[in-house]
Amino acid sequence: MKLLNKKTTASILVIGNEILSGKTQDININFLAKRFSEIGHILEEVRIVRDNKYQIIKSVKELSKKYSNVFTTGGIGPTHDDITAECIAKAFNRKLVLNKIAHELLKNHYKKTGTELNESRLKMAYIPNNSLLINNSVSAAPGFKVKNVWVMAGVPKIMQAMFLEAVEPKLSKKNKIISKSVKILKPEGDIAVFLTKLQKNHKYLEIGSYPFYKPPDIGTTIIFRHTNDKKIDNAIKVLCKYLTKANIQFLR
Amino acid sequence: MKLLNKKTTASILVIGNEILSGKTQDININFLAKRFSEIGHILEEVRIVRDNKYQIIKSVKELSKKYSNVFTTGGIGPTHDDITAECIAKAFNRKLVLNKIAHELLKNHYKKTGTELNESRLKMAYIPNNSLLINNSVSAAPGFKVKNVWVMAGVPKIMQAMFLEAVEPKLSKKNKIISKSVKILKPEGDIAVFLTKLQKNHKYLEIGSYPFYKPPDIGTTIIFRHTNDKKIDNAIKVLCKYLTKANIQFLR
Repeated sequence: MKLLNKKTTASILVIGNEILSGKTQDININFLAKRFSEIGHILEEVRIVRDNKYQIIKSVKELSKKYSNVFTTGGIGPTHDDITAECIAKAFNRKLVLNKIAHELLKNHYKKTGTELNESRLKMAYIPNNSLLINNSVSAAPGFKVKNVWVMAGVPKIMQAMFLEAVEPKLSKKNKIISKSVKILKPEGDIAVFLTKLQKNHKYLEIGSYPFYKPPDIGTTIIFRHTNDKKIDNAIKVLCKYLTKANIQFLR
Repeated sequence: MKLLNKKTTASILVIGNEILSGKTQDININFLAKRFSEIGHILEEVRIVRDNKYQIIKSVKELSKKYSNVFTTGGIGPTHDDITAECIAKAFNRKLVLNKIAHELLKNHYKKTGTELNESRLKMAYIPNNSLLINNSVSAAPGFKVKNVWVMAGVPKIMQAMFLEAVEPKLSKKNKIISKSVKILKPEGDIAVFLTKLQKNHKYLEIGSYPFYKPPDIGTTIIFRHTNDKKIDNAIKVLCKYLTKANIQFLR
């Protein structure tokens, strides 16, 4: 089930106790996942870890080795539980240094808003040596990129601005991964044998079967994913022909 | 920042392309995270992987070694992309066998609903040898437990029923992790120095600082977590005393 021959892979590392305690429903993963589909990067894995040095360093190293890009969210603010920058520095044996550009950005931002650039806020200008900065048009404190790891804020509004304005434009654009679906008002067990055959005959496609269960609305959505529209349409044609023959109603 | 001395740890493994493609916003993680806080298990890590044998087997093995319990969601239906059971069997060197009780459950369920128990549906009765079954009051096909790994459905309605009715009652009940918060209408940079001191003086507490940014509503929520109510209240008292002195408004 390869979506592409030369895959550009992605992984996300969510850093934050608030997700693991249940306090916060994460929405960053879904936002990024959709963008990756749009630009043809395959999101292979997501990890969510606590604000814990050992866990963050280990995960970043592992994901950085395995995938083309790693995107982290969370832990780059001014408080004691914001430890992402120092962890990334340690993971790649870099020094955590006062970044002059980041320092200027913070000075200007806080001057404009009449806020004191105190010791805690200054912490946000300490960034691993030789990083590329990621602009933050919302609250100034930048994200940064080290090797293949893009470090972004956790607050969705800020993360989204960073990604759309400063990260996505720098990522290679592959063919968009097209997704089409066929909805069937039958449980998936009714068409599973046929779907297995369909997948075997269209190995290059990603064919997923997703039951929905909200009685009396019980059925299955079949999702086809690939970069090639025609290949998807061919498989859908075969499916629809089968469904018609088997007298199973469907919606395209 | 230890929440407990003798920790009962948990991890979640979400299995499913639909989350990684952005098609589906996961809500199972947040549901489980809240339940774990309630029964005093510490959710240490979450991973989301694709319907990929290598990834599933590797992740299950790693998480099973690291944490007291692993909870998986997704991939136990009747279709070609449901491969969780065979992966769990491989991960623990067990045979995937037709489970007699699961077989009976499916026979009865499909007889009642007038549905054919075909080859694909029968697949849901193939379960790793020597598993404990997890009852499914919604759609009959059971989950199962192998070693410290609890395998559940991915459809939220079914997963929630499985967890509440058949998993949670079997988990050890630790002291509930109590969470209290103080809301401050100031950005977190204003109180970061004090919070660092507060965390140092209350090492046993988990103190988290979470900025919110919906102008003009800009501020910080400070979250305190521990099993001991009194310890939380003591720290909150110290914080509120400081805020009052510094003339910073807050809501408890």
